[in-house]
Amino acid sequence: MLIVQKFGGTSVGDLERIQNVANRVAKTKDAGNDVVVVVSAMSGETNKLVGYAEHFSETPARAEMDMLLSSGERVTASLLSIALQEMGYKATAMSGRKAGIVTDNSHTKARIEDIDPISMQDAVKEGKIVVVAGFQGVNEHGDVTTLGRGGSDLSAVAIAGALKADLCEIYTDVTGIFTTDPRITSKAHKLEKISYDEMLELASLGAKVLQNRSVEMAKKLNVNLVTRSSFSDEEGTLITKEENIMEKPLVSGIALDKNQARISLLGVKDRPGIASEIFNKLAKADVNVDMIVQNKAASDTTSIDFTVAVGDLHDAKAVVDEFVQNGEIADDTYNEDICKVSVVGVGMKSHAGVAAKAFTTMADNNININMISTSEIKVSMVIDEKYAELAVRSLHDAYELEK
Amino acid sequence: MLIVQKFGGTSVGDLERIQNVANRVAKTKDAGNDVVVVVSAMSGETNKLVGYAEHFSETPARAEMDMLLSSGERVTASLLSIALQEMGYKATAMSGRKAGIVTDNSHTKARIEDIDPISMQDAVKEGKIVVVAGFQGVNEHGDVTTLGRGGSDLSAVAIAGALKADLCEIYTDVTGIFTTDPRITSKAHKLEKISYDEMLELASLGAKVLQNRSVEMAKKLNVNLVTRSSFSDEEGTLITKEENIMEKPLVSGIALDKNQARISLLGVKDRPGIASEIFNKLAKADVNVDMIVQNKAASDTTSIDFTVAVGDLHDAKAVVDEFVQNGEIADDTYNEDICKVSVVGVGMKSHAGVAAKAFTTMADNNININMISTSEIKVSMVIDEKYAELAVRSLHDAYELEK
Repeated sequence: MLIVQKFGGTSVGDLERIQNVANRVAKTKDAGNDVVVVVSAMSGETNKLVGYAEHFSETPARAEMDMLLSSGERVTASLLSIALQEMGYKATAMSGRKAGIVTDNSHTKARIEDIDPISMQDAVKEGKIVVVAGFQGVNEHGDVTTLGRGGSDLSAVAIAGALKADLCEIYTDVTGIFTTDPRITSKAHKLEKISYDEMLELASLGAKVLQNRSVEMAKKLNVNLVTRSSFSDEEGTLITKEENIMEKPLVSGIALDKNQARISLLGVKDRPGIASEIFNKLAKADVNVDMIVQNKAASDTTSIDFTVAVGDLHDAKAVVDEFVQNGEIADDTYNEDICKVSVVGVGMKSHAGVAAKAFTTMADNNININMISTSEIKVSMVIDEKYAELAVRSLHDAYELEK
Repeated sequence: MLIVQKFGGTSVGDLERIQNVANRVAKTKDAGNDVVVVVSAMSGETNKLVGYAEHFSETPARAEMDMLLSSGERVTASLLSIALQEMGYKATAMSGRKAGIVTDNSHTKARIEDIDPISMQDAVKEGKIVVVAGFQGVNEHGDVTTLGRGGSDLSAVAIAGALKADLCEIYTDVTGIFTTDPRITSKAHKLEKISYDEMLELASLGAKVLQNRSVEMAKKLNVNLVTRSSFSDEEGTLITKEENIMEKPLVSGIALDKNQARISLLGVKDRPGIASEIFNKLAKADVNVDMIVQNKAASDTTSIDFTVAVGDLHDAKAVVDEFVQNGEIADDTYNEDICKVSVVGVGMKSHAGVAAKAFTTMADNNININMISTSEIKVSMVIDEKYAELAVRSLHDAYELEK
């Protein structure tokens, strides 16, 4: 097999951990696999460099930041390659450039446009373990770019796609994706397999593990993704095509997102296009709106409720205030003490009653549902934040996720 | 004027010092000059990275070391560019690659083969201050290489040559080149100008300031080199073509090299080619022989004395021992308690009696001269190490170098 293994900052946090990574890579190689490794900067390094830059400027130029920050991954890649060579393996360290990663020109948040895998392929053919500095590429001018948050995961997935690797293993400090947050219920257990779409819906469970950008790319490139721990030998969770999952569970997991705020617009003038105007302006202000509910309240007004991430609340208020001042919205209220609980599972597609069970469970526990939104594989409910853990535990029980 | 300014590790040793460097560069720019800056890694950074590599291997692969070590200069270049931009200057950071520095394939001690200065020239034309990561280039395969000890100076000199810069300023923690080591005599004073050849002969005075490799390249590319301090506004020493020095002093300085050992070969079989054999074998063993004196001792044997750097003594002994075992050399003795004192000056070429005055000065002070070697612009004497300071002070007085 050709396996791409990606190790994040914590996994390569010090020299001893880099040696541990080398041992793990060696084991994979010894098992008869070809291995391409993608590494992040040693944890703390990137923050240190950002701190240096901020000493000089609050708004350092993004091209300079890329040259600065890309150095951290190069250090780790060199060291890991040296460690592997010392153990007797053929290895070679590559920068993003050498690995053939070409991006657009958006410094500090570049998108991968193309990968020319020839250098990696040649090295693999020579029996070498290839160690690539993650998080980075070059633009058309040959300048170093970085891929933004979660960039090393993206590097790994894109490389796995370009090399048509059998597996792309993302190593972090958790053992995989769980049916829900194990801190909320001890009945939570690790999923063996999950589809890309489920993973995307379970983002709040996986966010610390895997960013949606990486899962979306894995889905697009048809990369079999595994998240697992670099600190144990435990098998991780495979994220793959729905077709690859034989036994499709009704519900895979319960996600909880506390980072939500609800905005209620009351007495909205009921003229055609008003909703579109509001949400277009929110989009322009880079406010990401999640759930929307509209209720006809009176003959000439309506009420609109929607949720945004807490961090976007300030910008959202600014947009809404304009409409209030114009008199097109009578009143607006804001509530940060809410949360979103989601029931996710590909099995829902072919089963009725999943949503009903969720609502019943809430009712049985006297939890009032403020908003509801559903998709093919998800039922999301907005409830008061104080009921968050109770809701998750109850749903986990109701769908018998403890196995 | 187009000025290349190079700042070493101590000059960019911390964030405050990088800001000082930014201020100095800005001043040069404000004076109406175009400026290209070459920087080293922050002092300590390179050693830290070497330490990391040595944690894994005593003999880390040189290609990996280059990728590892080249990151330090990139960090400094990015930070300095950010500092300059924050001060309102147009600036751009460039890696060695971006600056067009092409080297041979000798990882960790590459030689600059070519510089394509187009990126730097374009940026300068746009009014930008160019900040180049020193010490590094790329080989024909596009892999990062580093230039070895003193590499950032070499980068600066080569860039100054390629850009036909008016001046290449090398900033360190000393104010310039002195007539002799100021720690030996307080009468030592800083030289205003000195020729390339004198500088090469005065290596022991300048070694901490400037490596011979850089001076040789400056001579070849006809680059006007200035060494000065980044911690004061004092003018430095200009190292330039002999033709540019109007008033040629008889003697420019007194150099002292304590890092010498003397090897005496007694009863060497006097057959044709024996000396050539010995010194060829020493060369093959990478032993750099400095001075050589041969004396016919008897009808069928000769004696040969030569000096090597103390660090080469062990290897030299190994070579000599072979000849002793073959019976071609009767006896060998070694003396590390010697030093070499040199009187250097381009004025010597046209003046007789310079060497005679040196010998007289030694005699007047009861210092026995063990070996003598002379060149057009230098008289070197090997003496007992205990007389080193006395000899330097006496010669400094004899040639009236206190001005």
